[in-house]
Amino acid sequence: MASDTDATADLATVVNLADFEQLARVAMEPTAFDYYAGGASDELTLDDNPRAWQRWRLRPRILVDVSQVNTTASLLGAQTVLPVGIAPMAFQHLAHESAEPAMAAAAARQGVVFCLSTMSSRSMEEVARAADKAGGGPRWFQLYVHRDRARSADLVRRAAAAGYGAIVLTVDLPVAGRRERDSRNQLPYPEAYGNFELPAANAKGGTLPVVIGGLNDSALSWADLAWLRELTALPLVIKGILTAEDAALAVEHGADGVWVSNHGGRQLDRTSATADVLADLVGAVAGRAEVYVDGGIRRATDVLIALAMGARAVFIGRPLAFALAAAGEYGAIRALDIVAAELRNDMALLGVTRLDRLGGEYLVRG
Amino acid sequence: MASDTDATADLATVVNLADFEQLARVAMEPTAFDYYAGGASDELTLDDNPRAWQRWRLRPRILVDVSQVNTTASLLGAQTVLPVGIAPMAFQHLAHESAEPAMAAAAARQGVVFCLSTMSSRSMEEVARAADKAGGGPRWFQLYVHRDRARSADLVRRAAAAGYGAIVLTVDLPVAGRRERDSRNQLPYPEAYGNFELPAANAKGGTLPVVIGGLNDSALSWADLAWLRELTALPLVIKGILTAEDAALAVEHGADGVWVSNHGGRQLDRTSATADVLADLVGAVAGRAEVYVDGGIRRATDVLIALAMGARAVFIGRPLAFALAAAGEYGAIRALDIVAAELRNDMALLGVTRLDRLGGEYLVRG
Amino acid sequence: MASDTDATADLATVVNLADFEQLARVAMEPTAFDYYAGGASDELTLDDNPRAWQRWRLRPRILVDVSQVNTTASLLGAQTVLPVGIAPMAFQHLAHESAEPAMAAAAARQGVVFCLSTMSSRSMEEVARAADKAGGGPRWFQLYVHRDRARSADLVRRAAAAGYGAIVLTVDLPVAGRRERDSRNQLPYPEAYGNFELPAANAKGGTLPVVIGGLNDSALSWADLAWLRELTALPLVIKGILTAEDAALAVEHGADGVWVSNHGGRQLDRTSATADVLADLVGAVAGRAEVYVDGGIRRATDVLIALAMGARAVFIGRPLAFALAAAGEYGAIRALDIVAAELRNDMALLGVTRLDRLGGEYLVRG
Amino acid sequence: MASDTDATADLATVVNLADFEQLARVAMEPTAFDYYAGGASDELTLDDNPRAWQRWRLRPRILVDVSQVNTTASLLGAQTVLPVGIAPMAFQHLAHESAEPAMAAAAARQGVVFCLSTMSSRSMEEVARAADKAGGGPRWFQLYVHRDRARSADLVRRAAAAGYGAIVLTVDLPVAGRRERDSRNQLPYPEAYGNFELPAANAKGGTLPVVIGGLNDSALSWADLAWLRELTALPLVIKGILTAEDAALAVEHGADGVWVSNHGGRQLDRTSATADVLADLVGAVAGRAEVYVDGGIRRATDVLIALAMGARAVFIGRPLAFALAAAGEYGAIRALDIVAAELRNDMALLGVTRLDRLGGEYLVRG
Repeated sequence: MASDTDATADLATVVNLADFEQLARVAMEPTAFDYYAGGASDELTLDDNPRAWQRWRLRPRILVDVSQVNTTASLLGAQTVLPVGIAPMAFQHLAHESAEPAMAAAAARQGVVFCLSTMSSRSMEEVARAADKAGGGPRWFQLYVHRDRARSADLVRRAAAAGYGAIVLTVDLPVAGRRERDSRNQLPYPEAYGNFELPAANAKGGTLPVVIGGLNDSALSWADLAWLRELTALPLVIKGILTAEDAALAVEHGADGVWVSNHGGRQLDRTSATADVLADLVGAVAGRAEVYVDGGIRRATDVLIALAMGARAVFIGRPLAFALAAAGEYGAIRALDIVAAELRNDMALLGVTRLDRLGGEYLVRG
Repeated sequence: MASDTDATADLATVVNLADFEQLARVAMEPTAFDYYAGGASDELTLDDNPRAWQRWRLRPRILVDVSQVNTTASLLGAQTVLPVGIAPMAFQHLAHESAEPAMAAAAARQGVVFCLSTMSSRSMEEVARAADKAGGGPRWFQLYVHRDRARSADLVRRAAAAGYGAIVLTVDLPVAGRRERDSRNQLPYPEAYGNFELPAANAKGGTLPVVIGGLNDSALSWADLAWLRELTALPLVIKGILTAEDAALAVEHGADGVWVSNHGGRQLDRTSATADVLADLVGAVAGRAEVYVDGGIRRATDVLIALAMGARAVFIGRPLAFALAAAGEYGAIRALDIVAAELRNDMALLGVTRLDRLGGEYLVRG
Repeated sequence: MASDTDATADLATVVNLADFEQLARVAMEPTAFDYYAGGASDELTLDDNPRAWQRWRLRPRILVDVSQVNTTASLLGAQTVLPVGIAPMAFQHLAHESAEPAMAAAAARQGVVFCLSTMSSRSMEEVARAADKAGGGPRWFQLYVHRDRARSADLVRRAAAAGYGAIVLTVDLPVAGRRERDSRNQLPYPEAYGNFELPAANAKGGTLPVVIGGLNDSALSWADLAWLRELTALPLVIKGILTAEDAALAVEHGADGVWVSNHGGRQLDRTSATADVLADLVGAVAGRAEVYVDGGIRRATDVLIALAMGARAVFIGRPLAFALAAAGEYGAIRALDIVAAELRNDMALLGVTRLDRLGGEYLVRG
Repeated sequence: MASDTDATADLATVVNLADFEQLARVAMEPTAFDYYAGGASDELTLDDNPRAWQRWRLRPRILVDVSQVNTTASLLGAQTVLPVGIAPMAFQHLAHESAEPAMAAAAARQGVVFCLSTMSSRSMEEVARAADKAGGGPRWFQLYVHRDRARSADLVRRAAAAGYGAIVLTVDLPVAGRRERDSRNQLPYPEAYGNFELPAANAKGGTLPVVIGGLNDSALSWADLAWLRELTALPLVIKGILTAEDAALAVEHGADGVWVSNHGGRQLDRTSATADVLADLVGAVAGRAEVYVDGGIRRATDVLIALAMGARAVFIGRPLAFALAAAGEYGAIRALDIVAAELRNDMALLGVTRLDRLGGEYLVRG
């Protein structure tokens, strides 16, 4: 792909995940960049997410034989090369024309979980084919429950058929957050809906809150989980939990995974940074489900901190979107290479050779 | 009104309350803008007020049916569309020629309490007519007790006659604060006194501290509340309380409402931000009176935090003055529209459908 | 004085104490300004002094009759108009040619304590005459104990004879602090020693540390207080105490006053801001001596906070030197006018009519 | 040396250690400057190191006879003029052509410990000769254990023969940290290995991580300490400890010294600043070994704080490298002069005449 080749040259200057943001700022339409980079309201939670990881300090142990470090993890029974996944992000064609198929292929090649958004710009079947062509590996399907339940049921069935290994139910978007950059940019809602036809009633007006308001079911409640459980035998992950109370409820309602998330600061502003609540939620889950977390991950050091707090894996969003923007699949591969290299380096320097050895004793509040 | 029409065009760029400040800076005389925007001394309390709300984090609950959210509140027995009022602000003609009548009309149209200042630039009767023409609704009268008690008594009786439903006694202005912007600007004290004739002795000299010093009774004490109670059967709110001790005293002296306020940082600098003391005062009042708060409210999120701390309603000042400055009544209406939209959005994302469900369990220190 | 008249015009723009600093920056030689404005090493303590007062918040009480507020204080038995003194500062001719006589006259006119430095640029007798001409009032003499004790004894006897009412023994300058601005400026040590002849041995070399090293007795210890006590019947204040242990020792050695000070951040950098230790020292003194404090006072609000912590009076240094620099005696008078006006305003707004009513219940950590 | 003479002129402007950094920035190749100045990853630990010392405040005692202050210390039985050493730094020819011999000579002249890096640009024997010519004094040899143990054993034996009085085993570099400045600068790994021939296999590729990866034994563990203990009778210091657990283990494995270090923020980013953990490690060692610390020392005040926390001595790195860069041996001498002068000044102002009197009672958290 010509544009990839061109962009690839730029990656010579890339040293860490943050570097991709500057490249993406150049590569993307400004309004599309803002759509990805921005958050809700004053963006306080957006800004706090990465800083919250940085408030912790590591306690490295010395004179440990670190000639071999093992970065593998197991998520819902599947083995991954890294304790990392790619968070669901809508409309990835806004980042790069190669979009979700390229991102899924990068995940497959690098051995990390790929989680596809309901709002993918390409169909889940096309994405699955691209991933399989790149070697396969665990992929999950993120679900928004629409008012029209039949449509949602259809999505779940298609996901299972296309080899997606878990349903990730997002519960923090009963209505769309107030993303003021998009309002100022008068961002029209994208027209690429890879997974379904946008109902005609929703196609008009066209701003994000209007479209979401027409699709998503803001009446969704715990009682509806039974419907979902009946629909599919796939493991169920609930994404967007920020309180210990809800983490416990999720487990009691049969969730296999609890995904701690504030939607990247894009929904309710002034929710806690995920790093500030993760340990509490791990305590509430008490080993009855796997715990994942996203929000502000910019370094493998953040990943290690999350794992030391009890997360099973960490999902990365914006940095991978920006890497995709910078150089398509190659950019995402490169970004994951950096995460892997940082992780191996951090583990050796922390004196930890296996991820399941990590625990709170490696952390101290900075 | 031509100026309104012109200004209205600008509102296309308005996304949140803070946006009005920039428009007001252009629309207002610089010295008038400073009069509204400024605070006392080093403006530490002024600056701390909005930041103090931002120090709290919300704990959103998920999988709650939020298809219907109810933003109504009841204040002193009157129903309002929002748990919000417009704080008393003097001399609103400095913001916009349409002044208090326009502000009161906006409040009436939007279903929020309007609180008129003793120092209104228009008479309380004119303001009442404008409000009634716009649909009426709860309006309150803010009272400074003058040395000449007969004049104050007259104001109270006129307020009752003109349909003001409560007397809001301001107790934090025995003398005027040291507002250094006004000193530097050599701001002459405004000549528009809608509610009374300025005594000749006060008209000279003309700076704010001199005029206030001539009017307000700095000897006012708890003992004088009996005089006020005898004067009128209207509910009594005491505004400008910052300690639990005084909140308890207010209740014991028969206050129906306790209004937590540091006068927008315009009186004694280095008093606490209202968000930092609200919960303490709610505890001291212990349900014996309604508790209101003002100071630094810039988002519906601030409103929710105040209500979760136990406030019955929140009063907004400067943002509405700036909205009035930007586009008159339409500006104020638009500002309240934003508050309402933010509030509905926040409630849905917080998983709360009625305001009386809010409590401390939705908050955590950030 | 022509220069005063010229400078006076500038004071039209002065609203608070901080304003004098900008005027002084223009009026003074840059190296002299740095000598006054600067502190030791990284100037961390210098910077922290004013901020430490600002970390406290006031708890104003309402509905108190504040029609009369009384700002008077009593220091070592003498009545003052304000609970304020002028801290000893060396070489005031560097600020303004009218120097210490003008400063002492301003203090006398405004009813505050004047404390003269051993290192005064004018003789204590000349200063006393100027103060008496301006109405007199309490004045104290700050003492450095020189290696040549006979010279120090002579200074003490002359001070008593010239009507200085207390000896303020400075104990935090056994050697001079490392004031790097002066090193960079290659500031020669001033040649004006009003109170004594500089011994020839000290006149050479001429930098501050060298001169001080030649004069001050770095062997001074608690045992030497007996010598001083025998020399004079004047009350003894020990200035430069920062620990509760030393405050208690000072009382046990017969001090009438304990002066909490870090020498304006000019001696050992990274000592605590005085506001951060004052309450502890007040506790250790336990009413057995009067407690004073200096360091970072820029507002009457700082004065009130210090008094609420238990100080009897507060000494102000740099702002008065800068006021002197800006407009000689008139500048210092004006500065004290501002302090008085702020103090009356703050007391009224705090609901306090007498200074002895102040206590910790008016403070809360901000 | 001509370049020294030239540079010497510049030192006229030097007042404190920080001043050398600006001179070094001019004197050094930008990539070499970055190699010395930079740290790992986001450089959070690098930045935090100096700030952590500044978070403490000193509690000066007054009226102590400080006419004589004694700055001497005893390290592993050797007397030093200051409680200070020069931290091991690799490739000092990058700072100045006179390199390690000049640095060691400066240490000898000033009576501080010199610690030579395994990665010295000159041979340990040449350095020893330069030090002896300058008067001798305690010198230590820092050891990286290579995969090829015979080579490491040879280094240890040569060090003993050349008069190095202790082996400082660095344990926080099983692999090289991710120093992104060097990556961006494409810094080739230096070719000057004074202490050994670089194996041909390591000479290729040439970046720091590659070379280190080829040399250092990342399998090194506590069990290997026995090998080292058998090799030499020299005292053993373990450098790079950050947890109380490892400090205790080091003592139990026979370490004579525990060196608290995060490698100047160059290895694992987000480890604690050394000032934040020192007291804990001192507690764990409980007097069974000497404790040293490095990281962020920029003032003698930092040294005093470290000693008050229980360190026996403090090692200084970057400031001395920059002093060497600015003016060779003379620069390093001048830097140590500043440390000595500051230390005497601080001790006098703190009221402490001997270093062994320092303790936690002189500190308070700022």
